[in-house]
Amino acid sequence: MKKVLALMIVLSLALPAHAISIAKQGMFSAGGVVLSTDGKFDPVHGQFDPAGQTHHADHANVFYQIPEEGSKLPMVFLHGYGQSRMGWMTTPDGRPGWSDIFLSKGYSVYLVDQPRRGEAGQTSKPAEISALTQDQNWYTQFRIGLWPKSYEGSQFPDDPESLNQFFRQMTPNTGDFDVDVIVAAFVKIFERSGDGILFTHSQGGIPGWEIAIASEKVKAVVAVEPGGLFPFPEGEVPENIPTNYAPVRAYGVNAEKFAKLIDQPIIIYFGDYIPDEPVEIPSRDYWRGVRAMSVKFAEAVNAHGGDCTVIDLPEIGITGNEHFIFQDKNNDVVAEHAAEWLKSKGL
Amino acid sequence: MKKVLALMIVLSLALPAHAISIAKQGMFSAGGVVLSTDGKFDPVHGQFDPAGQTHHADHANVFYQIPEEGSKLPMVFLHGYGQSRMGWMTTPDGRPGWSDIFLSKGYSVYLVDQPRRGEAGQTSKPAEISALTQDQNWYTQFRIGLWPKSYEGSQFPDDPESLNQFFRQMTPNTGDFDVDVIVAAFVKIFERSGDGILFTHSQGGIPGWEIAIASEKVKAVVAVEPGGLFPFPEGEVPENIPTNYAPVRAYGVNAEKFAKLIDQPIIIYFGDYIPDEPVEIPSRDYWRGVRAMSVKFAEAVNAHGGDCTVIDLPEIGITGNEHFIFQDKNNDVVAEHAAEWLKSKGL
Repeated sequence: MKKVLALMIVLSLALPAHAISIAKQGMFSAGGVVLSTDGKFDPVHGQFDPAGQTHHADHANVFYQIPEEGSKLPMVFLHGYGQSRMGWMTTPDGRPGWSDIFLSKGYSVYLVDQPRRGEAGQTSKPAEISALTQDQNWYTQFRIGLWPKSYEGSQFPDDPESLNQFFRQMTPNTGDFDVDVIVAAFVKIFERSGDGILFTHSQGGIPGWEIAIASEKVKAVVAVEPGGLFPFPEGEVPENIPTNYAPVRAYGVNAEKFAKLIDQPIIIYFGDYIPDEPVEIPSRDYWRGVRAMSVKFAEAVNAHGGDCTVIDLPEIGITGNEHFIFQDKNNDVVAEHAAEWLKSKGL
Repeated sequence: MKKVLALMIVLSLALPAHAISIAKQGMFSAGGVVLSTDGKFDPVHGQFDPAGQTHHADHANVFYQIPEEGSKLPMVFLHGYGQSRMGWMTTPDGRPGWSDIFLSKGYSVYLVDQPRRGEAGQTSKPAEISALTQDQNWYTQFRIGLWPKSYEGSQFPDDPESLNQFFRQMTPNTGDFDVDVIVAAFVKIFERSGDGILFTHSQGGIPGWEIAIASEKVKAVVAVEPGGLFPFPEGEVPENIPTNYAPVRAYGVNAEKFAKLIDQPIIIYFGDYIPDEPVEIPSRDYWRGVRAMSVKFAEAVNAHGGDCTVIDLPEIGITGNEHFIFQDKNNDVVAEHAAEWLKSKGL
């Protein structure tokens, strides 16, 4: 520890804030399918004719950075609905994102655009991109506030330029959201990264549980406000939880699959502005249901010998967080909590 | 050449492979528009209703890295057709891309997904994503070879997994390719980066010339096989050059605009397998036309007092390059050439 502290002091004297020494970084695609059209390709007389040609699609796109100092397990980051890896890498007001914070702590990071999103745009199924005005819908759903005013005490950086950056951070599906397609790609990512820690956010939490089931290389899961669909052991599936937005759902998996979820520690974070009792505002009521189902999920995991913790941040004195906890003004505080939890699990 | 070799030996002794110290990195969106729908937004009774909502779209998405050592001008990278920034950041066989190579030389890098591409997916116009089989069309058009065989002596890493990675590197437009939209976003990027060097590839070359005209912060242009549309002074516009693929085109700009193109040094690179005389294979014949038009463009720039160089790589002994010169097995050799050229211009 003394050696580490000494090193940190040397680094902090020698380097400007946030300096990171990268041993290696790069990009790759993982998983996916190859479509093909019957026939013979003719590059001279018909290069545009699909006959005899292939189409590579449905892969994930991965940017990885490996720090020079540190031999901790790699972290693999999966974004939520309408997002790309960008949200893990920065904040709307340009501070370091969680990937930079954990890089500085000696973790390798694998930042993913899921299949049919961002730079992983090639899809096996044609799709339509909409230009519908929906910014305020997401502002609402992400519990930033009641437009145009953020909730009292919000940690969201809501000056006009940060809000502009936040809205532009969204990027559409280039094909249907398909859990199986995403899980298949992430199994390949973990084959490449080796044993690692899976971070999920929001809708990404749904394939996230299935990735932890499918890949033995997932050694911990950090789920930030995971989406409203949770696996339970067959025969122990609770009723869906009705909310003023949509029901929060549960589904059954067989004993062998559920056993994979007790194989690694899991932590689930929830931010602020989530009521304990039903409220009229649909977006806030929905997260009440999701948090309640997360508690049931944790109870099921722990009853079967697993290790799942649900953290209600306001309950431990960390207030003001909306849905993008890892981008809020106190994102370093919550990252530190996650780092301490990982340390307590020997990771 | 001796000097270059000596430098390469010193570097290979002094540094671990590819280690880079990053003073700061992050992401941001630049430029774009805000659509809005008339009406009043109601977060409680109709959060999905587009009324009263906005849609942020048509921005560029930028990932930047600033190295700790080096105070050279930042480099801003614009990809080509169907590509994202990924192509500048890695190679199909996982070696360092040009961004890593130039970072190691002390340049900051700004890696862009142009509006309506990759992580800059939000568009002001609805669009359709296709799943058409077209891999071999692009293999052909990018002069890798006559499928499934690469051209004799090719520097393209064409083992099966590299080819798989190359095909998955493509990602579709989420809206129409629009030069004006791209130029507007890049002007904003250069406002943020400050004076810098613009790198373009292929189709990106077309907005590239207009970016150099529109932004006084562009201090050099490195164009890798720019697309087939070039600006000339009004009254000096040459005839289009017919090819077996499509005509290579020229257009007129007024004297004031063309003067902006003589304000900074320009270098244009072409790879191998481009014939001097018309040939039957459309894809190779097209690049013959583009190279010929580039030579005319350089002559026009230089006739007006500018500084434009066209490099035919085979002519200087660098052979085997296809269209993605910066990803080929000798990408370090061509990067070194560009670095020496920049140095010769005091950049």
